[in-house]
Amino acid sequence: MQQASFVIRGDICYSETPQSLRLCPDSWLVCLEGHSAGVFPALPEQYANLPVLDCSRCLVMPGLTDLHAHAPQYALRGQGMDLELLDWLNRYIFPEESRYASLDYADQAYRRFVEDVRRGPNTRVCVFATVHPEATIRLMDLLEESGLCAMVGKVNMDRNCPDTIREASAAASAQGTRDWLERIEGRYRRTRPILTPRFIPSCTDELMGELGKIQRQYGLPVQSHLSENRGEIAWVRELCPGAKHYGDAYHAFGLFGGPACPTIMAHCVYSEGEEAELLKKQNVFIAHCPASNANLSSGIAPVRRFLQDGLRVGLGSDVAGGTHTSIFKAMADAIQASKLRWRLVDQSLAPLTVREAFYLGTLGGGAFFGTVGSFAPGYEFDALVIDDARYTPQGRMELETRLERTVYLSDERDIRHKFVQGRKIV
Amino acid sequence: MQQASFVIRGDICYSETPQSLRLCPDSWLVCLEGHSAGVFPALPEQYANLPVLDCSRCLVMPGLTDLHAHAPQYALRGQGMDLELLDWLNRYIFPEESRYASLDYADQAYRRFVEDVRRGPNTRVCVFATVHPEATIRLMDLLEESGLCAMVGKVNMDRNCPDTIREASAAASAQGTRDWLERIEGRYRRTRPILTPRFIPSCTDELMGELGKIQRQYGLPVQSHLSENRGEIAWVRELCPGAKHYGDAYHAFGLFGGPACPTIMAHCVYSEGEEAELLKKQNVFIAHCPASNANLSSGIAPVRRFLQDGLRVGLGSDVAGGTHTSIFKAMADAIQASKLRWRLVDQSLAPLTVREAFYLGTLGGGAFFGTVGSFAPGYEFDALVIDDARYTPQGRMELETRLERTVYLSDERDIRHKFVQGRKIV
Repeated sequence: MQQASFVIRGDICYSETPQSLRLCPDSWLVCLEGHSAGVFPALPEQYANLPVLDCSRCLVMPGLTDLHAHAPQYALRGQGMDLELLDWLNRYIFPEESRYASLDYADQAYRRFVEDVRRGPNTRVCVFATVHPEATIRLMDLLEESGLCAMVGKVNMDRNCPDTIREASAAASAQGTRDWLERIEGRYRRTRPILTPRFIPSCTDELMGELGKIQRQYGLPVQSHLSENRGEIAWVRELCPGAKHYGDAYHAFGLFGGPACPTIMAHCVYSEGEEAELLKKQNVFIAHCPASNANLSSGIAPVRRFLQDGLRVGLGSDVAGGTHTSIFKAMADAIQASKLRWRLVDQSLAPLTVREAFYLGTLGGGAFFGTVGSFAPGYEFDALVIDDARYTPQGRMELETRLERTVYLSDERDIRHKFVQGRKIV
Repeated sequence: MQQASFVIRGDICYSETPQSLRLCPDSWLVCLEGHSAGVFPALPEQYANLPVLDCSRCLVMPGLTDLHAHAPQYALRGQGMDLELLDWLNRYIFPEESRYASLDYADQAYRRFVEDVRRGPNTRVCVFATVHPEATIRLMDLLEESGLCAMVGKVNMDRNCPDTIREASAAASAQGTRDWLERIEGRYRRTRPILTPRFIPSCTDELMGELGKIQRQYGLPVQSHLSENRGEIAWVRELCPGAKHYGDAYHAFGLFGGPACPTIMAHCVYSEGEEAELLKKQNVFIAHCPASNANLSSGIAPVRRFLQDGLRVGLGSDVAGGTHTSIFKAMADAIQASKLRWRLVDQSLAPLTVREAFYLGTLGGGAFFGTVGSFAPGYEFDALVIDDARYTPQGRMELETRLERTVYLSDERDIRHKFVQGRKIV
């Protein structure tokens, strides 16, 4: 099934808006040259000659998008979870990332990450690598081979980290980034670079200025972290006394969204007031990472408020602040976290529903990649075919219920087929 | 390996107290006639003739105890999670439990529950059945066959539920319970009855009085629900105007702990003051069910305070308020929930550590079954052998780190052997 044009028959569902879920039992999903031509209750005459993959009684849904993950931390997931962010970085993460100076180590570790993501439900991922260009290119090569669509960032950091992973200077960090970009130019079909200042505490103003220039020169998207932890926010306030808020510290260098600078900011647990307004104005994508925010005792982001106010939101695994790459798990975690926030913090913000969480993990995050995360006509054809018989053996439940159970109960064993841009990779 | 006496060699760990974890890399665990004879750095001479199961490089730890699960809800897990407790019961749970009037339905559904628990990491379970004696006996038969150790309750309820599962009267409920107890007398080696008034809103005072008599006559343990949800607590206050608190409504009938009435109360999210004092005084076991308490928007129980104050605490999956039976997942959920409670509610109650969560899921809950949940000499031999190579491929991590990763990352695929009372069941 490597054809660019084919038909899948099954029980199909996809989001149209956060609240609107299209449910199409026993229907026909048409892929034309890597794009959806739509979902039909009966196969239209003009597609009668296409090959049909009969997935009757399986669920068919868009692939999931992970807007935030750290590939080099995958080997450490589920480790050191008794610490908060800054201590955890210093004790576990920075030493581990230092090891990616070795291409052999990077190759071994990144293979495991990429293979596990390939076998799971995510079809699109935005990942941090490390400061090492060689290892970053290896990760990009592996992601390209896997058939996944990915944006990958060589990390920039020139302060407040161990010597072993601190780039020698702002100029060296910028030059390393330019070299990396030139070495990969034209090298990939599905893998794209994304500019990745780790977070404000790791980047001097001089470096941020250089990255702003690189962003404009290459027209790159940007990913970073924002307002994850109260200690981190206080630190940024000290480091950037002139910034109106944490987000402004990126914005001052032109690295915070806008039409020419598509941007993902991970976490935004404490983004409110002017920072939230700027996120909206600049069309910045928020990567909501509920598991990580619990594991590192960061808090719970007000996703309901973001949705009400029209901000862009998707989900992130934040491996290894999160322990699992699956964005199904992030959906369940997001719902649980929103319920606890409603109960414990603010009863004016209703919990997220399953529909909304499913939207966030498909169309919400997918939109960062363009027309991705839906089966509406014209969308890139990323699809999962899931056999839910293992956890829904009765076979007599409604489609929306089966989708809810898939969010809570499925794992990679249940994926029968997985397509990215019309190409079968599982 | 069905011998009652044998030796396991591996990387062994078990809790001694909530804070003290014994770590014994490459050691020898001796089982003598179904009980632990202890863990040794080298095999003592007197055990040299016992058969050895070489599990080198695998983790060996006590089996896990699930103090609270609803077997008939297993088919519904991951469904209707957008509702709160009382609505969810009426909309989904009570209609499903009504189906257990059919022994055929019960047999099919209970087989799936029992088989999934058998294949998972739990060795001991305390479960609610339904009001139906026949189906309850079928569940007990299946649990006995599985090799698990279980306490099973025929549920009592004579008010505030649909006619289809409301017992006709307090007298009929009591008589049904006596009949059930007589029919199973002497029938099982590992499966025991536990008296199970569903919760105060489902049981009239008359029924509670009858159950108090049955408890004293048969010397049965008791399980029920306590202070899970604010709406439920307010309802109990209306129903029992004479009770000092929700717990007192059980205590008034002699169904709330004490030396002759071992008792589990699930949830205790809002147990404080006099109710918490009574829980302690009566040595009641609290079944902490963090996943369920998030899914049903109930809140987060103050487990740190319970531990500080010396209350008995174990973990419950609360399937199907919780979606997964594994108590490893309950450990990870308990840690996450405690971190969010610390961050959002009360910074005087520190988050639970991995050691503490592991204690809760092994020795903490196991103690309800007697000398269970440890490898100290004399404990019943419930053991898991876990091959962590799937998620810890490096093979160079410390034992406590491997245990932490097992809590967060393992699933039933990683269980190589599982023993209950010295008998291998996986």
